[in-house]
Amino acid sequence: MKTDIEIAQSCRMKHIRDVAELAGVDEDYLEYYGKYKAKIDLKLLSDRAGAPDGKLVLVTAINPTPAGEGKTTTTVGLADGMRRLGKNTVVALREPSLGPVFGVKGGAAGGGYAQVVPMEDINLHFTGDFHAIGAANNLLAAMLDNHIQQGNELAVDVRRITWKRCVDMNDRQLRSIVCGLGGKANGMPREDGFDITVASEIMAVLCLADGLTDLKARLGRMVVGYTSTGAPVTAHDLKAEGAMAALLKDALKPNLVQTLEGTPAFIHGGPFANIAHGCNSVMATRVALKMGDYVITEAGFGADLGAEKFLDIKCRLAGLTPSAVVMVATVRALKHHGGCPKGALGTEDLAALERGLPNLLRHVENITAVYGLPCVVAINRFPTDTEAELRLVEDKCRSLGVNVALSEVWAKGGEGGMSLAREVVRLCETPGSFTCSYALDQPIERKLEQIVTRVYHGDGVDLTPAAKKQAAELTALGFGALPICMAKTQYSFSDDPSLLGAPEGFRVTVRSLKVSAGAGFIVALTGDIMTMPGLPKVPAAETVDVDENGRISGLF
Amino acid sequence: MKTDIEIAQSCRMKHIRDVAELAGVDEDYLEYYGKYKAKIDLKLLSDRAGAPDGKLVLVTAINPTPAGEGKTTTTVGLADGMRRLGKNTVVALREPSLGPVFGVKGGAAGGGYAQVVPMEDINLHFTGDFHAIGAANNLLAAMLDNHIQQGNELAVDVRRITWKRCVDMNDRQLRSIVCGLGGKANGMPREDGFDITVASEIMAVLCLADGLTDLKARLGRMVVGYTSTGAPVTAHDLKAEGAMAALLKDALKPNLVQTLEGTPAFIHGGPFANIAHGCNSVMATRVALKMGDYVITEAGFGADLGAEKFLDIKCRLAGLTPSAVVMVATVRALKHHGGCPKGALGTEDLAALERGLPNLLRHVENITAVYGLPCVVAINRFPTDTEAELRLVEDKCRSLGVNVALSEVWAKGGEGGMSLAREVVRLCETPGSFTCSYALDQPIERKLEQIVTRVYHGDGVDLTPAAKKQAAELTALGFGALPICMAKTQYSFSDDPSLLGAPEGFRVTVRSLKVSAGAGFIVALTGDIMTMPGLPKVPAAETVDVDENGRISGLF
Repeated sequence: MKTDIEIAQSCRMKHIRDVAELAGVDEDYLEYYGKYKAKIDLKLLSDRAGAPDGKLVLVTAINPTPAGEGKTTTTVGLADGMRRLGKNTVVALREPSLGPVFGVKGGAAGGGYAQVVPMEDINLHFTGDFHAIGAANNLLAAMLDNHIQQGNELAVDVRRITWKRCVDMNDRQLRSIVCGLGGKANGMPREDGFDITVASEIMAVLCLADGLTDLKARLGRMVVGYTSTGAPVTAHDLKAEGAMAALLKDALKPNLVQTLEGTPAFIHGGPFANIAHGCNSVMATRVALKMGDYVITEAGFGADLGAEKFLDIKCRLAGLTPSAVVMVATVRALKHHGGCPKGALGTEDLAALERGLPNLLRHVENITAVYGLPCVVAINRFPTDTEAELRLVEDKCRSLGVNVALSEVWAKGGEGGMSLAREVVRLCETPGSFTCSYALDQPIERKLEQIVTRVYHGDGVDLTPAAKKQAAELTALGFGALPICMAKTQYSFSDDPSLLGAPEGFRVTVRSLKVSAGAGFIVALTGDIMTMPGLPKVPAAETVDVDENGRISGLF
Repeated sequence: MKTDIEIAQSCRMKHIRDVAELAGVDEDYLEYYGKYKAKIDLKLLSDRAGAPDGKLVLVTAINPTPAGEGKTTTTVGLADGMRRLGKNTVVALREPSLGPVFGVKGGAAGGGYAQVVPMEDINLHFTGDFHAIGAANNLLAAMLDNHIQQGNELAVDVRRITWKRCVDMNDRQLRSIVCGLGGKANGMPREDGFDITVASEIMAVLCLADGLTDLKARLGRMVVGYTSTGAPVTAHDLKAEGAMAALLKDALKPNLVQTLEGTPAFIHGGPFANIAHGCNSVMATRVALKMGDYVITEAGFGADLGAEKFLDIKCRLAGLTPSAVVMVATVRALKHHGGCPKGALGTEDLAALERGLPNLLRHVENITAVYGLPCVVAINRFPTDTEAELRLVEDKCRSLGVNVALSEVWAKGGEGGMSLAREVVRLCETPGSFTCSYALDQPIERKLEQIVTRVYHGDGVDLTPAAKKQAAELTALGFGALPICMAKTQYSFSDDPSLLGAPEGFRVTVRSLKVSAGAGFIVALTGDIMTMPGLPKVPAAETVDVDENGRISGLF
């Protein structure tokens, strides 16, 4: 059996000019990065302001498990399936981070016969967006510490600096450091730490910005720390937003590539799905909606985090209305939710599967009942799935009036996505009545309460004394009307990763609240969220190689 | 008067395809990065292996002063002047680092009417080469610390780690840190520090590599630290070179841009000129020599560091033979060498000028007598220069039989470089007899002695006891036959920055020696070399901005 990279490398890619043409985009709007990647000039948006938008379809999933769900694979294969139905369809995905590529997870460009290509480029530097974000992030950090070194006119409290440096690498050694050592000429000693680049607020800012002017304004609003009297210090106070925006002016432009079957695919931006909102950029979604009659996009983690933020943050702030939602599940993952041990996932277990189904059904119910959107379950077929297992999921869904389709895109590409595609086309004609799960003009605690009770189906939320104090402070600083970005375990509806399936009777504890003023949301932390991963015992990097012709191997 | 960026932005650039065509390079070899930048496929070298090489002309300078010399400006304007003479000429320069761009120096793409464009792109991310180097550098660091964390099978002594992380930013706060804090899950506490990316050995490796296979071998040889028994630990021991080479496969390809007058210009690689060799990549020089009948290139700092390393390291290792050398000087800088205070440099001072001339003449003598190459002095005209001053320099040179030409490229572009161009064309017909200043198969101390006495004109070299011990260790480890890379102040022939002009009777002290085993040289440190700059009181970043159309201002 071929590996993902072997399949990707055996694909005969179209020139990106032809991919763009397929979606009616003239070469004038393209900035080439080689033959198979291009950035799109944002002028396309103003030039086509009067043209109608396509229909937006979100691909989300059940709570992730070690078994894997295949959300990106389904997104890509669904789009290829829609193309086979003759529908002008475009994909919009997030960019992968170098950290996981060299760590344990491998790349993030789909799998099997449903991938985006050139996968090596996409998984490595791509068009340099993440490097630009890292540079802007670290310029701000250098300007902040330089300000302190040069006299600290703004009276920044070095114990209350919230801005961290970043690298796009899994590097636990940098989680906690002391910097500014070595005497007076070498900075001010203080505690510090690095995040991985995708965790930088700039990533979220770039992905929510509505153009270069908005980007710069958001960058300026970012809080880097607090003064000795508790006033926020912003990037604007440091006169840093102009240089940062200059560093990001190309990164703001969406990247166009293609699927294995030549479907146009935007891969742009990749914020964390816990401390940030976990979706590709608003710019890419907007451009995609001008290019395709259908835009298939995805959100991070399961629907409780990914879809919730896609709908309550991204769609609300950008004024987007999705037409349908695809809920990806696998038999293996559902069995995991039903208590089946990891080693037994490849063996038929109808009882475990049935026990796991409530996880899927609760997510579907959220989409339809809470958000008022049409939804279809996509069963992403794995080779080990038995017919009886597949039938059980389909029957159960049908008996409850839940739309369901089998997706075989991993093995068959777009052809394996055609039945799902038909369902999606049908759903897009169904009128929805999109509403968010909470209104913005409520106290922070009330918004948290609504997410926990309506989306997670918990009994309520508890704030620690520290979080309560922070809620009051953030409200006093004028941040009270921002949406909430929940930083919670992705493995459970609750804040306890061991509560699989569809747990009930739990409460969620918010330990602290912080503002991402540039991104425009309040992050609610329900536990320790790792913003700098580490490498495993044998990093994936050890197997990556390149031959004398520049052909890369060992990426997966 | 227009600023550099205003001149650059008012230039009507040619499509890079047409620039390449001018040098006879087919579109098939181009990988576009937008319309005005391209990388060149290295296949061009094998496809043209039988074609003759052009003539290589080095532009170097007197010892740098705060007054500025204009080496890059002269290089660019000379090439444009040669084109005006009908000569197929190509430029090869180093890439600028983001650190100085946002710090105090501004960009590094020439000045006035002798610039390379698009200057904003070149000065910011360009084609991402430096980001790729940073990522490879930091991947290696993460793999090293992860190796220690996962059991330290190689028995790396955490007190003897020589590999630092890097960022492409002026950030003094990172010079000296303690990392790995926060307990067992977060690494091993140890002292550490960051360099600016251009100081990474990977930069030197990339610039000296002779292809992807050689690059990977060099990366594998890099020493990251020593074991408890003093044995070197390499990147190969950590199985890191494959992934690093994969990250660098595109960065190894030369970048093509153009001058304001449309002359093809390679801008590729930018190693430090003290701890490294300070020249653009061997790959860019090789490709340029296949494209142009003349290739104008430059080396960092003054000729004692830049030309010495260009000739003794780069040309020797890559088997290149330059045809001529241009020695850039300005009246202002010569007056500075003659003791004229900074505030008075704009006023005529023939006495100071005459006192400063020996600096220039000694550099010229080195090129002709030590290295056996034809040399011409280029007086880079500044608006404040008086006719009497210019005449003094010319007369003095002529009386000593030194070739000299006035260069007015800053004000007039290629037209101002035509008389220098005529001299260069003439010199390229003069037979040279290129030899290095020292042979490789001698003891390290003897090689140091020859550089100091023959190139610097000092009385001799002294090694500290520590340096003596290191020389013995490096020789025992098999590194004794490598060339020497002197890390010395750029401001003086000596190791004392206050000894201007042409000092005599001094000795040079080598404080420590370290091997850059991947680059393939031994670095001799004669003092504290700053490998991580800091930002000034008012960083240049504060004035950089971008408007809603993506137009950048405030770069200079």
